[in-house]
Amino acid sequence: MAYKENYPSALLTEAVEAISSLPGVGRRSALRLALHLLKQPSENVHHFTAAINDLRDNVRYCKCCQMISDQDYCSICQDPKRNHAQICVVESVRDVMSIEATGQYHGVYHVLGGIISPIAGVGPSDLHIRELAGRVKAFPDASEAEVILALSGDVEGETTAFYIYRQIEESGIRITSLARGLGFGDDLEYADSLTLGRSILNRQTFKP
Amino acid sequence: MAYKENYPSALLTEAVEAISSLPGVGRRSALRLALHLLKQPSENVHHFTAAINDLRDNVRYCKCCQMISDQDYCSICQDPKRNHAQICVVESVRDVMSIEATGQYHGVYHVLGGIISPIAGVGPSDLHIRELAGRVKAFPDASEAEVILALSGDVEGETTAFYIYRQIEESGIRITSLARGLGFGDDLEYADSLTLGRSILNRQTFKP
Repeated sequence: MAYKENYPSALLTEAVEAISSLPGVGRRSALRLALHLLKQPSENVHHFTAAINDLRDNVRYCKCCQMISDQDYCSICQDPKRNHAQICVVESVRDVMSIEATGQYHGVYHVLGGIISPIAGVGPSDLHIRELAGRVKAFPDASEAEVILALSGDVEGETTAFYIYRQIEESGIRITSLARGLGFGDDLEYADSLTLGRSILNRQTFKP
Repeated sequence: MAYKENYPSALLTEAVEAISSLPGVGRRSALRLALHLLKQPSENVHHFTAAINDLRDNVRYCKCCQMISDQDYCSICQDPKRNHAQICVVESVRDVMSIEATGQYHGVYHVLGGIISPIAGVGPSDLHIRELAGRVKAFPDASEAEVILALSGDVEGETTAFYIYRQIEESGIRITSLARGLGFGDDLEYADSLTLGRSILNRQTFKP
C-alpha cells in the first residue's frame, strides 16, 4: 500500500479532511497540523476545540451595528464619546477592526455581514441593509448625519454601495465613500493605471 | 477604544489565541480562520472540532513499528508481502508517509517519535529506541536483516543515527543510511558546497 491518497488511520483522515476545509489550508498543511495536535497534551487539544465551539455557539452580535460582541450592544455603540451620527458601513467584523486600528475614526459602524454577490448567491436580503435603513430613519434630522460607505473597490463592493445608496438617499443623509488614490509611499511607476488615472482626476489641493 | 491588541469579544480572543497556538499560524491568520468558522453552520464547526478531539483521544499506534494505526498492528506490519527483515527507522509518522509515497520501499518501518535533541530536552529514552533494539534482537539471524537509518542530515539526525548504531551494532545486523548527494535535476552551480563535496567523494559507478 502507498499513502499517496490514503492516510494510515481513518481518524487521521477525518481530522486532515476537517482541517483542510479551512480556507488557505491545503492537505499537506492540514496533515502537519493534525500531527502537531496529536503530539500535544490531551487537555491542550480539548481547550483548542472548546474555544472554537464556544465561539461558534455563544457568539453574540451587537443589536445596533451587528458587530461581534459579548453583550447586547457592542462597546463602540455603548461609548458616549463616539459620534453616533456618523455610521461607517463595512462588509465584515474584520473591517471594523482594521479601521479601529487606524485610530482615525470616532463614529460608529454598521456591519453588513457580507457583500452583494450574485455569483456567491448573496443578495441584499442576506445582508443587514434593512437594519441600516432603520438606523438612518431613526435620526431626528438625517441631514445632520453621515453614512460612510467603506466597501471594497471591486465590482461587488461598488454594487453593494450603489444598492445602499438607493435605499437611503431619500433620507437626505450625507453619503460618502472612502478616498481612493495612490497609497502613501506608493511609487508612481508601479501604480496601476486605473488608480493613477483616478487620482489625477480626483486631485486634491496641495497642503504643505 | 482601538482593537490593536484586543478583540471585540472575549470568545473571539480565546478562539484566536487557541488557533494561533498552531505552528505557522500567526494572529492575523488565526483571526481570519476564527471569523471563517463563525460564518459556518454550527454542525460543520462541531464536526470539525469533533474530528480533532477524536483523533487525539482515540488514535492508536502500531505495537510493532509505532506508526499511527486504527488497529493493534498497522497495515504495513500486517502485510505478508512486505520484507519484515528490512526495517526503515524514521523520525515521524510523516516520514513513513513520504517514503511510502515514493513507492520504492517494500520493507517495514520503525517510527522513533522524535529525534535526540538536547536543546528540546529530548533524550534517547523519550524515543522508541528500546523497542527497535528489541525488534533487532528478535531476528533469528540478524546478519540476514537490515536497518536503514532514514533520519535527517542535520546534527540531531546524525546524533540519533549514531546513538542507534551503537545500540544495535553488536547484533551484526546490516546498518545502512539514505544516499546523500545532489538531488535529481539539481544544478551544480546552485548546489551547496558541502553536498557537492560529499557527492564527489562518494561518487558512484556510472550506469548509462
